[in-house]
Amino acid sequence: MSIEAAEAAVASSGQRVRDLKAEGAAKEAVEAAVLELQAAKATLTASVEAALASCAEGTPEYDVLKAKLPPAAKPKGKEKKKDDAPQNDRAAAKAARAAQRGAKAEAKAATKDEAVLGPNLSQAEMDSAEFGNLFIQSTHAATRAWTGVKELVPSLAGQQVWVRARVATSRKQGKALCFLQLRQSMHTAQAVVFAKEGELVGFAATLPRESVVDVFGEVTLPAEAVASCSQSAVELQVRRLYCVSRAMPELPLQLEDAARSDEQLAADPSLTRVNQDVRLNHRVIDLRTAANQGIFRLQSAVCEHFRGFLLSQGFTEIHSPKMIGTASEGGADVFRVEYFGRDAYLAQSPQLYKQMALMADLDRVFEVAPVFRSENSLTHRHGTIFFHLCECFRHMTEFVGLDMEMTFFEHYHEVLDMLDRTFCAVFDGLNQSHQEELAAARFTRRCEQRLFTPSALDSETDERARARIRERLDARGPESLAEHADTEDMGTEDEKLLGEIVAELHGQDYYIIDKFPAAVRPFYTMPDPTDPRWCAPLSRPRSRAPGPRPSPRRGLAARSNSYDIFIRGEEVTSGAQRVHDPQMLLDCAKEKGVDLSPIYSYVDSFKYGAMPHAGGGIGLERVVMLFLGLPNIRKSSMFPRDPKRLNP
Amino acid sequence: MSIEAAEAAVASSGQRVRDLKAEGAAKEAVEAAVLELQAAKATLTASVEAALASCAEGTPEYDVLKAKLPPAAKPKGKEKKKDDAPQNDRAAAKAARAAQRGAKAEAKAATKDEAVLGPNLSQAEMDSAEFGNLFIQSTHAATRAWTGVKELVPSLAGQQVWVRARVATSRKQGKALCFLQLRQSMHTAQAVVFAKEGELVGFAATLPRESVVDVFGEVTLPAEAVASCSQSAVELQVRRLYCVSRAMPELPLQLEDAARSDEQLAADPSLTRVNQDVRLNHRVIDLRTAANQGIFRLQSAVCEHFRGFLLSQGFTEIHSPKMIGTASEGGADVFRVEYFGRDAYLAQSPQLYKQMALMADLDRVFEVAPVFRSENSLTHRHGTIFFHLCECFRHMTEFVGLDMEMTFFEHYHEVLDMLDRTFCAVFDGLNQSHQEELAAARFTRRCEQRLFTPSALDSETDERARARIRERLDARGPESLAEHADTEDMGTEDEKLLGEIVAELHGQDYYIIDKFPAAVRPFYTMPDPTDPRWCAPLSRPRSRAPGPRPSPRRGLAARSNSYDIFIRGEEVTSGAQRVHDPQMLLDCAKEKGVDLSPIYSYVDSFKYGAMPHAGGGIGLERVVMLFLGLPNIRKSSMFPRDPKRLNP
Repeated sequence: MSIEAAEAAVASSGQRVRDLKAEGAAKEAVEAAVLELQAAKATLTASVEAALASCAEGTPEYDVLKAKLPPAAKPKGKEKKKDDAPQNDRAAAKAARAAQRGAKAEAKAATKDEAVLGPNLSQAEMDSAEFGNLFIQSTHAATRAWTGVKELVPSLAGQQVWVRARVATSRKQGKALCFLQLRQSMHTAQAVVFAKEGELVGFAATLPRESVVDVFGEVTLPAEAVASCSQSAVELQVRRLYCVSRAMPELPLQLEDAARSDEQLAADPSLTRVNQDVRLNHRVIDLRTAANQGIFRLQSAVCEHFRGFLLSQGFTEIHSPKMIGTASEGGADVFRVEYFGRDAYLAQSPQLYKQMALMADLDRVFEVAPVFRSENSLTHRHGTIFFHLCECFRHMTEFVGLDMEMTFFEHYHEVLDMLDRTFCAVFDGLNQSHQEELAAARFTRRCEQRLFTPSALDSETDERARARIRERLDARGPESLAEHADTEDMGTEDEKLLGEIVAELHGQDYYIIDKFPAAVRPFYTMPDPTDPRWCAPLSRPRSRAPGPRPSPRRGLAARSNSYDIFIRGEEVTSGAQRVHDPQMLLDCAKEKGVDLSPIYSYVDSFKYGAMPHAGGGIGLERVVMLFLGLPNIRKSSMFPRDPKRLNP
Repeated sequence: MSIEAAEAAVASSGQRVRDLKAEGAAKEAVEAAVLELQAAKATLTASVEAALASCAEGTPEYDVLKAKLPPAAKPKGKEKKKDDAPQNDRAAAKAARAAQRGAKAEAKAATKDEAVLGPNLSQAEMDSAEFGNLFIQSTHAATRAWTGVKELVPSLAGQQVWVRARVATSRKQGKALCFLQLRQSMHTAQAVVFAKEGELVGFAATLPRESVVDVFGEVTLPAEAVASCSQSAVELQVRRLYCVSRAMPELPLQLEDAARSDEQLAADPSLTRVNQDVRLNHRVIDLRTAANQGIFRLQSAVCEHFRGFLLSQGFTEIHSPKMIGTASEGGADVFRVEYFGRDAYLAQSPQLYKQMALMADLDRVFEVAPVFRSENSLTHRHGTIFFHLCECFRHMTEFVGLDMEMTFFEHYHEVLDMLDRTFCAVFDGLNQSHQEELAAARFTRRCEQRLFTPSALDSETDERARARIRERLDARGPESLAEHADTEDMGTEDEKLLGEIVAELHGQDYYIIDKFPAAVRPFYTMPDPTDPRWCAPLSRPRSRAPGPRPSPRRGLAARSNSYDIFIRGEEVTSGAQRVHDPQMLLDCAKEKGVDLSPIYSYVDSFKYGAMPHAGGGIGLERVVMLFLGLPNIRKSSMFPRDPKRLNP
């Protein structure tokens, strides 16, 4: 390794150690990083010493080099930890030992390696060699036709194809044979390297896992199916083989460990488990498992179907600002930003802006955008050994909101029905067009599949379905639900009970609850005037602002025109009819003790003609997590954020 | 007005004055707000005094009320300003005078008003009255069929329809006739209220502009076309009329002023102009103009076609974190966030994360998300009197990035072609399906339409088109382009010249420039090895990291595999092939003096097998602005942000 590279490696490892400590990461993670740092320092020492050996003492170069020698790497605690060290420790220790052999030895080894590692080729040179290391720098226009691993099927038998893929595994068998498992996302195929002479087989055997290769070969039909590969009915007989990117020989985590299912782990306690923090620290590797390939392609599909349905219904997509001048909607749990000498805040939701967009005559709007919550609360829901490190924090501090808001004519159920149909469109889309991703995503954690089947949706997503749930709940009697004060929200237990009833009645894990108490909803929620506890009209409405106003105190006991949508007993959407009368908005805010003066633009937007409207916000990661039955919200966030995690 | 409401109005107006001052808003804007505040205080005084009059002196209530009296409102400078005051001033002064008449007088007036303003109705009561003020609180399920203003066409003649719309204007003609212009987004229709007896006409005449009404009436065919309305071939004979939301009588800006075209304003200097700051301060009203209705529906359509095309090409949508642990990509111009006792930063682009997503085998990804730039630079491009207030700041601090990144096989032009086809899909989509919005958006500012016609795109979007541009540029001779040092970027003048050539040759204002100097691109940009100033190979590549490395210094003079896309001579997209070799990345960063240790996760992501890849980022607001030829980036941002503006 060059001295520059070794120096950079030391700097990078040092930074990682500092970051992990700052994040309060698990002890083992910090220790592993410290070992990596020590290994990097050893490599640097070796590189510098080798350079010093070929440099006359006393020259300026010699002094410059000598100054680069790092402080002695002290592998303290390494031996003590050996037995219970995770794989990272072993890798680091091995790297450290290898580095300590010294650069001279390494130089010798490199000369020996070169024969096996093959020549370095430019794109111009590749046709002259049947194997080698190919660096692609766009020197030649694209001319080849490429075949995906997924497309390797028996009908291609006899054809010669180019495939670019990762080497999942490389198994040499004797001098003339090497099997490569090629992988592209969720698909794998077996490539057979067979050559009685030459170095093609030797070259194939040196390829570290996860390296990227270009393979030219003939598709053949094996006598027996290749059980270990998704493309089990074919093999690829390799004629030419180029390494496009050679992976480091030691991976921070093994993909086969990360890919195991709960069942496999339960059946064999000796198997290596990869905990959530290690996964997130090396997220790019972790994301390569088939389950994660499925999860994040499904996440994309959720957004696609959400938007596709709403666009078909005449919605306009908006983009509201994320930096706002005032800590709206309460002010707690909001992140502060330094904004040219004053304070700005990160938007906790696009709520006020999507309503303002409606008042600006956009009529039906949606937004897909990040939302920010500075919440620091601890959870008690998940306490298992594997998730305790990250599940200390119940909420992510940043997630993706799928928000919608629309005007309606007579009743906010027009909007609730739209939300309901949106969910159905999303579920139908996933079930109909993403079977492969669903199977991959559900492999590691199986959960009941009693939800979102198109047939169930066809018959059960209308007003009648909601009525039937109410009947069944009534039939269980009042004791089945916890007693609530008029101003209390539902508890988790009640939510789960309702989930069970829905599953019984409808064979699916999706339901809506309507009419929450005004006390547990935001100030801009429209009270339900059909509730007798609602006292209207209070006063003769002012001519400019007709309509009844709520009575302070008693109004809070009343229901409001608000709703939540649940999957598997957990909320994924919250929404309501909003107050569109500016006077009533002031009254409601006063009742809740909310100061509206910082958001006068919002209040003003209702003063010049306001359409009745309602809407809701959907948590993207929650929908993906609950649809798939994943155990942790971080599994459905590509690079999750919580109070302790800001990296990667 | 109730005392509570008056107090809230004072608080809100006071906050607005403080905000405007903090933002360094124009003097006139601040003065107008001060007058509003004074008017609000006068109203409060009047309300309190009225209450005091009906309250015995010496009682606790009396003292509480008395304490509410605000400090005397001193309308200093009001008279002096009268002549050149904007409409806001006149409104505020009028409101102040009205308020000062006192609450007793107002109460009398209200009783008189009630006859004209009509009864207040609940949804249950509306069938019993042919007009009135209807407050919609979702007490009754939706039962009516509603017709859009756009749908009012001659084929409906003779039918009775329900329409909900805004009252754009109300013109009473005698006792028995009133014309209402109804508006829904970009569409208007004339409603005729004719009644020889009863108060229907009087009620219609009291409706302030922008109020929302429900109209039930019969579609008829007028003898002459209604030239003032988009639905000129029909009229609506009003049978029943309900005010769903009554607007304040004085608007902060008049829609007909805000809607005028540049030509109209140039032809008649006496017309009221609405400057950009007033528009943005009252954005919800400003957005109701037909031009803005068109602009923001087109903005939505740009996103729709961008995503639709990329999804059709196998892309996956990702969501990368916006709060990041380190100030990546340079560190300047980055916003700092307080993050649980330490610092986080707002992402300036999803660049590093979209590359990491590719390294995680997602292969082709895109993201539509806000990006944040703490840029404080002043512009000199636009100095006109109408835009000087907001155009002091060249850049918005928050905008929407349409980012894409994909692996390629042999040459980064595979990716550039994908970007090119993406733009064509967007342009085609807009031109083919959004003619109405285009016409509305282009009304206020006409610009040449020599771009993005499907026929031009069909023949001119391939490699040949790019070659022809180069020929034409060569034909003009070297003197036509400014002399550049090897390490300099193109200047604005050169960009415009190229724009002219493209327009001459291809009849459109869209072009791509390829191969920028490495010196003006970020450290992760792949150098162009075909440039003779590029010195490769420098050293024997290490077996783990094959490939040539750039020579420090001389490498910066070389071209890089990077490109920009332009519309009307301004850049809308920047992109490049990225360095996918970790050793080369370290070398390039070192050459640029970039410290990679804080972003080790990014560097590490290339160590375990990396596919060659390229991508680009598109500024949504810039595409909309330049496609439509708008004069100001704030015109294509719904709620723009710059160093002085954080509201609304």
